[in-house]
Amino acid sequence: MKIRIYNAKILTMTDGIQFFEGELHTEGDIISYIGKDKGDGNFDREIDAKGNLIMPGFKNAHTHTAMTFLRSFADDLPLQEWLYNRVFPMEAKLNPERVYWLSRLGILEYLTSGITANFDMYMKTEAIASASIDSGFRTVICDSINNFGGTVEQMEKDFDSFNAKDPLISYHLGFHAEYTTSIELMKELSALANRRKLPVFVHNSETKNEVEGCIERYGMTPTELLDSIGMYNYGGGGYHCVWMSDKDIEIFKKRGLFAVTNPASNLKLASGIAPISRYLKENIPVAIGTDGPASNNCLDMFREMFLVTGLQKVSTMDAEACDAAEVLKMATVNGALAMGLKDCDTLAVGKKADLIEIDLNQPNMQPLNNIAKNVVYAGSKQNVKMTMVGGRILYENGEFFVNESPEFIFKKSNEIIKAMSNE
Amino acid sequence: MKIRIYNAKILTMTDGIQFFEGELHTEGDIISYIGKDKGDGNFDREIDAKGNLIMPGFKNAHTHTAMTFLRSFADDLPLQEWLYNRVFPMEAKLNPERVYWLSRLGILEYLTSGITANFDMYMKTEAIASASIDSGFRTVICDSINNFGGTVEQMEKDFDSFNAKDPLISYHLGFHAEYTTSIELMKELSALANRRKLPVFVHNSETKNEVEGCIERYGMTPTELLDSIGMYNYGGGGYHCVWMSDKDIEIFKKRGLFAVTNPASNLKLASGIAPISRYLKENIPVAIGTDGPASNNCLDMFREMFLVTGLQKVSTMDAEACDAAEVLKMATVNGALAMGLKDCDTLAVGKKADLIEIDLNQPNMQPLNNIAKNVVYAGSKQNVKMTMVGGRILYENGEFFVNESPEFIFKKSNEIIKAMSNE
Repeated sequence: MKIRIYNAKILTMTDGIQFFEGELHTEGDIISYIGKDKGDGNFDREIDAKGNLIMPGFKNAHTHTAMTFLRSFADDLPLQEWLYNRVFPMEAKLNPERVYWLSRLGILEYLTSGITANFDMYMKTEAIASASIDSGFRTVICDSINNFGGTVEQMEKDFDSFNAKDPLISYHLGFHAEYTTSIELMKELSALANRRKLPVFVHNSETKNEVEGCIERYGMTPTELLDSIGMYNYGGGGYHCVWMSDKDIEIFKKRGLFAVTNPASNLKLASGIAPISRYLKENIPVAIGTDGPASNNCLDMFREMFLVTGLQKVSTMDAEACDAAEVLKMATVNGALAMGLKDCDTLAVGKKADLIEIDLNQPNMQPLNNIAKNVVYAGSKQNVKMTMVGGRILYENGEFFVNESPEFIFKKSNEIIKAMSNE
Repeated sequence: MKIRIYNAKILTMTDGIQFFEGELHTEGDIISYIGKDKGDGNFDREIDAKGNLIMPGFKNAHTHTAMTFLRSFADDLPLQEWLYNRVFPMEAKLNPERVYWLSRLGILEYLTSGITANFDMYMKTEAIASASIDSGFRTVICDSINNFGGTVEQMEKDFDSFNAKDPLISYHLGFHAEYTTSIELMKELSALANRRKLPVFVHNSETKNEVEGCIERYGMTPTELLDSIGMYNYGGGGYHCVWMSDKDIEIFKKRGLFAVTNPASNLKLASGIAPISRYLKENIPVAIGTDGPASNNCLDMFREMFLVTGLQKVSTMDAEACDAAEVLKMATVNGALAMGLKDCDTLAVGKKADLIEIDLNQPNMQPLNNIAKNVVYAGSKQNVKMTMVGGRILYENGEFFVNESPEFIFKKSNEIIKAMSNE
């Protein structure tokens, strides 16, 4: 399949925020050309972008996709109660088929928000991978081993098998969180990470309660504890990173760790506001995640982007904090790098064709004083005209081009929730 | 024009959050029927809502619509610098024609977000009214007299003439803010409000700086000062209300004043987080505004709704704060009441047909565990399938049904900005 997109404003993200007027071609799953000419290619399809923006797809750097089943199911509750009394009992009823359909539902929503890859930490990983492959969507699975399930031995096997499975699927070492995982299990995982020289990702310092509990248990913050057992020797990062000490920040700098921020979830569960401005000053790379739909409740990178900058501005009382260019980098390039997707970070010849078309011919994108600021401060799902993953258009003009109709996927997910509620 | 909408989930907002499955008819600009039957009517149009949600349109209870020209023009700046060095110099170049087209642009965006009326505080009020009437949109103009322009004498004339002008237009007394208005002018306005027994609206306690300045000037907070000169004797309210003292809150309670919150603007300009939970506890009615697109930068009630609840949860560290039902009431009923639109607040026979269709057949609205929570926590402009004002469909399935094409309005607004930048 060869596709030509012309008459476009192209933001490659290879060199900061620079817009290039021209065209972009894809061949198979890669970008084959970016420039001013049509070239001599015969194309299967030619798309007039009508002056719209073509840019790298957003990378959702932390989520639990299949938690769509808990959307608006238990809101207005603090994290610990929400997790232990509502989420865990329902999750016990999940099986691979259920996770498959619930993930399919979440992937549809990613496409509407211009998200072309997710960093998915959830159970029933075979089902997650199938859901992504069947949707044509790119997923990086993060293991979520903890005291309630999973072994390090299996994680190593999964690491090898999932990374060899399909070009759309990759796999990272990970565990749920310090407060759900024994020190023995963490040490075993750290040994694997060191033996294979691999990064590890984990929920880290999401709530004040979590950090205080860890200090009580170990006399150290979660970051200090993990560093003390060598968990972060080969990189990785923390999801949330709301309550980080100066020493934690030093460790993140030293180890080159990613802070993956999830602002909507942190508001909704009253967890706090992550000190993103501080991370930027310290050159800690920041990526953005939606977290799962149970705690957000949507999967919308536009809302997250506005929150990242807005919350920094208000929490530091500095309206200059965390500008639009920084936020766009977090939502695209940094997300890809955190997820190990080195060929999905920018638009360049030879990179994967994971890209989106943003409709600038909408009232919220006018006038065109500053396109990058328009996207970050005023953008919305309604501006996503097209979402392409690996050279395949999966969403365009409000229509989905994936196996099974959205109506069928909605029906399946509603049936699953009804069955789970009755069990 | 008689329209039948059937196969709908109807949220009337007459009795809290209750969904009714049935149909709604309109005749002219009013709702003529809500119930289970088709009745014997001949309809000009019959719409199958396919199980989607029909609810009252959102009321944007504080904005400066024509400031679309400053969208993404001067961001990442604190309020005082932004206002005095960037906004005011550009605003000096506005004329009625410019305000007309810039307002037309903003109205298009309101329609995409399911907003059916705005409370618009801006200059060149004849042009604002024309823009709304030509769009079929409902606007409540709030006067914005201050030291730089406007007289109380003219305000009284405008009050009478605009309120008699067109069913889509109404008018409220108002002034810009204490810090831009002399005490003589405020007293003159208060005398008018008392003579005519009218409510007054004003930017009130938006920034800490504003409150401190007022205390320095008068030994009182803005709310205390206004109350001391009788400004609030017949009601009204404050826009923003971020920095309110206990005594201010007492005055708001005593006078039955509305607190109109603008959370996105308060984040972006680093103004602060308004204590909405406190207002709810004190039974102060809260409405929601987007503020102008220069300080937001979009006109999106979904983003505001999530921010209202999310910011309360995180700032009070209470995940139960300010639930979805409260927020929906603020965005619809309370907004209408603040704006004096007593016949646009709920869906009931005889009320104005100002309503919207929310597409529930979208991934972010599935599953249907709780529709109200889905709308507040997960909703987006992309879910607005139809926006009707006064019985006329102005936006449906991404198309606008107003005079002039969106492309023409975009072109005009870009031309205006170019001309203003070159002057």
